[in-house]
Amino acid sequence: MHKIGIVGGGQLGRMMLQQAANYPIETYVLENDANAPAAHLCHHFHLGKITDYETVLAFGRKVDVITIEIENVSVEALFQLEKEGVTVIPKPSVLQTIKDKGLQKQFYESNQIASPEFLLLNNKEEVTANESFFPAAQKLRTGGYDGKGVHLLWNSEDLVEAFDAPSVLEKLVDIEKEIAVIVAKNESGDTAVYPPTEMVFDPDLNLVDYLLAPANISTELTETAKQLALKVCNAFNSPGIFAVEMFLNKQGELLVNETAPRVHNSGHQSIEGNYVSQFDMLLRVLQNLPLGSTETIKPALMLNILGEKNHSGNAVYEGLENILQLEGVSIHLYGKAQTKPGRKMGHVTVIGDNYRELLSKAAIVKTTLKVVAK
Amino acid sequence: MHKIGIVGGGQLGRMMLQQAANYPIETYVLENDANAPAAHLCHHFHLGKITDYETVLAFGRKVDVITIEIENVSVEALFQLEKEGVTVIPKPSVLQTIKDKGLQKQFYESNQIASPEFLLLNNKEEVTANESFFPAAQKLRTGGYDGKGVHLLWNSEDLVEAFDAPSVLEKLVDIEKEIAVIVAKNESGDTAVYPPTEMVFDPDLNLVDYLLAPANISTELTETAKQLALKVCNAFNSPGIFAVEMFLNKQGELLVNETAPRVHNSGHQSIEGNYVSQFDMLLRVLQNLPLGSTETIKPALMLNILGEKNHSGNAVYEGLENILQLEGVSIHLYGKAQTKPGRKMGHVTVIGDNYRELLSKAAIVKTTLKVVAK
Repeated sequence: MHKIGIVGGGQLGRMMLQQAANYPIETYVLENDANAPAAHLCHHFHLGKITDYETVLAFGRKVDVITIEIENVSVEALFQLEKEGVTVIPKPSVLQTIKDKGLQKQFYESNQIASPEFLLLNNKEEVTANESFFPAAQKLRTGGYDGKGVHLLWNSEDLVEAFDAPSVLEKLVDIEKEIAVIVAKNESGDTAVYPPTEMVFDPDLNLVDYLLAPANISTELTETAKQLALKVCNAFNSPGIFAVEMFLNKQGELLVNETAPRVHNSGHQSIEGNYVSQFDMLLRVLQNLPLGSTETIKPALMLNILGEKNHSGNAVYEGLENILQLEGVSIHLYGKAQTKPGRKMGHVTVIGDNYRELLSKAAIVKTTLKVVAK
Repeated sequence: MHKIGIVGGGQLGRMMLQQAANYPIETYVLENDANAPAAHLCHHFHLGKITDYETVLAFGRKVDVITIEIENVSVEALFQLEKEGVTVIPKPSVLQTIKDKGLQKQFYESNQIASPEFLLLNNKEEVTANESFFPAAQKLRTGGYDGKGVHLLWNSEDLVEAFDAPSVLEKLVDIEKEIAVIVAKNESGDTAVYPPTEMVFDPDLNLVDYLLAPANISTELTETAKQLALKVCNAFNSPGIFAVEMFLNKQGELLVNETAPRVHNSGHQSIEGNYVSQFDMLLRVLQNLPLGSTETIKPALMLNILGEKNHSGNAVYEGLENILQLEGVSIHLYGKAQTKPGRKMGHVTVIGDNYRELLSKAAIVKTTLKVVAK
């Protein structure tokens, strides 16, 4: 059997492994926590630090194909494994580019991929010197994750918060919508592009942080977004799955925000909503199998389940009984024993025949399901 | 976290565990083979014989709720666990009745559940004495499984094959169709009934052993079948999931053939075809959660993937590349390293908008995908 290794054992690995059991493969996971979400769902769990060169190297030597579920891993070890003949997906060079937001921006620029204007700065002094570039987002070049490592700088008063470290200063875009497009490419060079998904922020329903798929945009814009994502994927010139996040500005232009070279939060709804889920897709890529259909079965909405404010400790899921009664509502809890404010504890997907149905069910989920500590 | 134990580690356990990762539960599996299909997908794997009293007892004492994925387990141990306060689903009394096909037939009779006419016989001599009851199926009262332990007796010439052991002699039914209905009941007494599925034998397409859901029968018959299955479930008076197999005879009557008190081959297509799959449903039952919707998302066809004739040894899946290109086709391989003729190695589900589409794709799968030994 094909031996497939995943560096990282979080929820992305967990959902991959749920799907992996459908294929004739043997699975390996490397993670520094024996109770990680993915730890109990693989054939071989290896306890170790994913950022440690020797650890990742030794792990990778046990498998035929290795992939990642988080960018913050020892890329040097992946380069060495590639040299030794292990198939590394995505290529380590892609990870190296993406991990450094500065290199990532330069990559878009040199490949003529539209992206917000930017400056590369070395320290706080240089930020201060470029106040005329504001309003801007200052992003640490490395180490940022899930909203961390980013400051919005509107005017000189915000300078007190600026990072004194190598960073990207990115001009703020006047955003109409945020969308994401997932693209897959296998070693044979076949590509598959998912319908765009839309990140919706709806203050009226008090629903933030939910995602709609397919995005509620014109056919023309859909096609443009898919082509842009495919261009990004082809520029990276690597097998893998790529989640390309984009801004649609008020002028109707699409600008690439950033790319994740892996399964992504913006594709979770594909488990229920699409013929081939993003997790299934990655498994096909890892085996160099045909990619299948990215078509939508039914429109879907995805809501992250986050730990409640002011609650830290043993996670308890309140309201599960209520939402499980709703047709088309599926829950995915990530098996994290401990909750803390804002921690991603799971997600809920709603599928239905129209957006109105999705929204009304999502509103129930949002007000009913709570992760508290007890 | 709720601790849930599964006695048996085959493909049914495997598919349960793929779904179990969505819930806040800790999973335990007991099986006598460390490479069993379900062994690597649980939190705690216990190596041991599922028919052994002490083994099952010790295993069951570690969990809050225990269930089975095969009937041939130590029911005595489950009775003892029930006494000790472990929640056993289905109740051991149900297993005791169902494991003995004689008791199962008497159960249908005493609950006024229509079922083929039968005699209970002790030995071959009694079979010979009841030749006037032919054509009939002789079924061993205990130990039969997956078509084993059954002989068709058409006339006196077949007597040479008759079992010389306690058996049920069942009058052959003039079958129009074979259908199955899955019913679930939780501890609160909520019930949920799936649309009937139909086992189709199509000599023209050379497609045997495939299943269509929902069954291609009238609305009236659908309702009658669902009511009959619900009657069976209520008669058993136990939480659990029950697959009720029925014959539709040429007179248009439904007769219960037999019931499996567990997830079942006739419900596999529910993973893709229904809002709540049978595996999700059992997990809801085990947690006494609301059962949700059994409605169909799209019509589905399920095909078992059986080991090729004349092939025994290390399993290799030929033609996988071809069928993965088909939209709506999902594969589920069971992770069995060794194939042998007729062994259930996996299944394929096809979903689509109409039966014609399902049948044409199934024909491709049937002629393309082969499990051979290499």
